[in-house]
Amino acid sequence: MIRIDYTNVMAEVIGERDGILREELLSFRHFVVETHSIIQREKDRKFYFCKLPYQDTQEIKDYAQHIRENFEYFVLIGIGGSSLGAKMLFESLTDLNYNLKNSPKFFALENVDPAVFASVLEQIDIKKTCFNVVTKSGSTVETIANFSIILSMLKKELGDKYKEHLVFTTDPEKGFLRKLGNQEGIKMFDIPPKVGGRFSVLSPVGLLPAAVVGIDIDELLSGAKKMDLICSIEEHVEHNPAYLIALTHYIANMRRGKTISVMMPYAEKLSSFVDWYRQLWAESLGKDGLGQTPVKAIGTIDQHSQIQLYREGIRDKIITFIQIEETEEDFKIPEDLPEDISYLSGHSLHEILNKELLGTKAALIKSKVPNITISMDKLSAYNIGMMIYMYELATGFSGYLYKINPFDQPAVEEGKNFTYALMGRKGYEEKLEEFKELYKEKYKIEIQ
Amino acid sequence: MIRIDYTNVMAEVIGERDGILREELLSFRHFVVETHSIIQREKDRKFYFCKLPYQDTQEIKDYAQHIRENFEYFVLIGIGGSSLGAKMLFESLTDLNYNLKNSPKFFALENVDPAVFASVLEQIDIKKTCFNVVTKSGSTVETIANFSIILSMLKKELGDKYKEHLVFTTDPEKGFLRKLGNQEGIKMFDIPPKVGGRFSVLSPVGLLPAAVVGIDIDELLSGAKKMDLICSIEEHVEHNPAYLIALTHYIANMRRGKTISVMMPYAEKLSSFVDWYRQLWAESLGKDGLGQTPVKAIGTIDQHSQIQLYREGIRDKIITFIQIEETEEDFKIPEDLPEDISYLSGHSLHEILNKELLGTKAALIKSKVPNITISMDKLSAYNIGMMIYMYELATGFSGYLYKINPFDQPAVEEGKNFTYALMGRKGYEEKLEEFKELYKEKYKIEIQ
Repeated sequence: MIRIDYTNVMAEVIGERDGILREELLSFRHFVVETHSIIQREKDRKFYFCKLPYQDTQEIKDYAQHIRENFEYFVLIGIGGSSLGAKMLFESLTDLNYNLKNSPKFFALENVDPAVFASVLEQIDIKKTCFNVVTKSGSTVETIANFSIILSMLKKELGDKYKEHLVFTTDPEKGFLRKLGNQEGIKMFDIPPKVGGRFSVLSPVGLLPAAVVGIDIDELLSGAKKMDLICSIEEHVEHNPAYLIALTHYIANMRRGKTISVMMPYAEKLSSFVDWYRQLWAESLGKDGLGQTPVKAIGTIDQHSQIQLYREGIRDKIITFIQIEETEEDFKIPEDLPEDISYLSGHSLHEILNKELLGTKAALIKSKVPNITISMDKLSAYNIGMMIYMYELATGFSGYLYKINPFDQPAVEEGKNFTYALMGRKGYEEKLEEFKELYKEKYKIEIQ
Repeated sequence: MIRIDYTNVMAEVIGERDGILREELLSFRHFVVETHSIIQREKDRKFYFCKLPYQDTQEIKDYAQHIRENFEYFVLIGIGGSSLGAKMLFESLTDLNYNLKNSPKFFALENVDPAVFASVLEQIDIKKTCFNVVTKSGSTVETIANFSIILSMLKKELGDKYKEHLVFTTDPEKGFLRKLGNQEGIKMFDIPPKVGGRFSVLSPVGLLPAAVVGIDIDELLSGAKKMDLICSIEEHVEHNPAYLIALTHYIANMRRGKTISVMMPYAEKLSSFVDWYRQLWAESLGKDGLGQTPVKAIGTIDQHSQIQLYREGIRDKIITFIQIEETEEDFKIPEDLPEDISYLSGHSLHEILNKELLGTKAALIKSKVPNITISMDKLSAYNIGMMIYMYELATGFSGYLYKINPFDQPAVEEGKNFTYALMGRKGYEEKLEEFKELYKEKYKIEIQ
């Protein structure tokens, strides 16, 4: 079960300067109905991610089982849309000490940071490791850099058997990785061409790693299907969670100046859910001078770091809290506390966590800061499946509100091109000239 | 060595709409000189944190040595200003796999999240653990909640010997923790009363945990001293790194609409340096409707998540990159790569990392997004000491620019008071009434 409480974004609670009028929300009625029917038609094209919950998962589950039986370590090599979703599933849905108690242990090589690379190498035995290389284009710099080092290590250690230690997740036809996989006969999974990286967590990109670490991927998809069902039926914004998330954020942004969307779970395991959301929201909607900046905060930790700013800084924020109602384990404060702290007696950590959230919300209401709370009864694959689908659809729908294409990322190429030029890649000679023209180091202070 | 390159915030590079004119920077000349002399006078009062680099560290080092010799685990119990600094030092200045190879292993109990509490408990043996309870007020809810559970476990396991497993870091006179420490004869370190939590990392709050995990705290202070020396002598903004950081951000914010300050290190070990900065910047300057929102990003990971937004979203950002020039270990890409990816041949991960930063900077210059780069020759205690002092002083100086008090956090109390009320604390009955008045759950969607 998930529940979205949007009482505290409404003008009747926080006033019209910062809050939304119910009539305002309802005034988008025709727009919503029209966009709804466009989206239904687009599910075979731009909104193809809506189809992912209905895929057959047997091959993924079988291969995950093969990996579970034959390897002690599983390393995902991927970055951005090729890693954030899998990491989110792993961190949200397995025990925080998963790697201490389970096999295969899970690691990710995302960055080209040598300290991280060294740290992962030190924790695995390459002869007992399955590497899942994930890149849709087949040529992502970081992924290919990390992979090419690993590949040479594997070949050195294992000779021709290296192939059994690799599984590629990539475009079904295009790109370097597909070509290599075909040549060498390496096990591969397809990323559906119509699904962009940041919308791909419910494809083999996220599902294979999830199944390897023992997450029930059918439950995950079943939550996503439920959300798809609700969102396909409900054309009314007050009954459609995805459209509601999109519209409240859009109105808050464009009519009330809330240019920042904070997501603040009161559960540390959801920390990387926010990282996944940050990419989805920023890369999809940050274009044409528009789009909110997504910001990550963690309750209660950031009460002691950011709440001063959220209450009394610039009035540019809408906050989404995420709360887990039930917890598997909990710890009770002893009964016999000294007078000064006796008010804590008998309460549990989880109870304090949720009461701090309530206290924080009340303080934000007083400061007229709009906030939404998403509650899950528990942290389950089913609920996370609902959340993923809801946010993906909300993002796609927001594209129509902002009148931008939420599925491209044109501004990302330029930095890559300059990097290619600096690496001496053929065909980028002009880019190198442009770099030299642009880049100066004129104003500096240096302290020894 | 640290170097601050601010070429790319200047109007001559990114234009006057987004960039700063040199004359504009220099026009603050008199303000800077005046504020400089106020700060020198305030070093015994509000700017007391400036004195911390000159403290005698012998007692801290001796006690850290005692802990290193007698315990296998060291758990910091603290939150906000009582944990972010210590975690930043630990993560920046020890090996990423420190806990796999060293003793005492380091953990932090910050949140009241039962999953985290369980995870830490599972990784330690309480009979071999030293707990460092850190709270300036002596009554922080999360800290006292976690501590009271640990205390009852310790007493159960160890009887009267439990005392030897505790060390408190708190106000020298006031608060519940000091009282308890005095009664029970527990080892305590003082937090100087004139130093606020978020400015306390160079007091025993950060130094004791740092010394326990083997960081050279004298080197750390010696970097801070060097920065203090430079910043005490240089009244000219172009030679004073702290004032330069403050002024460029202030002008970017108040005159160019850059309401967001992104900090983006190209080194994952600096991830929690950004968390420390987030508290410092947000809680100090987020008041009176002013102050930038600090945002964390990690290079290269967030190139694949946030750069689309930074280049083509709202023009509300100034970005600070942090770069490490030398690395202890590195990994070379093999020479014999296939044609498609041969441009990577022979380069190293660290080289690619830094070239991606250059590529990203060039792309941002093209989009006229102001950015500063702080380079360190290496990730050392000395350099981190310089960074800490520089940002603390920049924050204090910014208080004068914004004309707000950077050392208080008035808006944090309200949420705490509501939480006390919800916990049934005596004296908060009226707050509970106020809560009931404010807090409604009227608009909801629920999906089973």
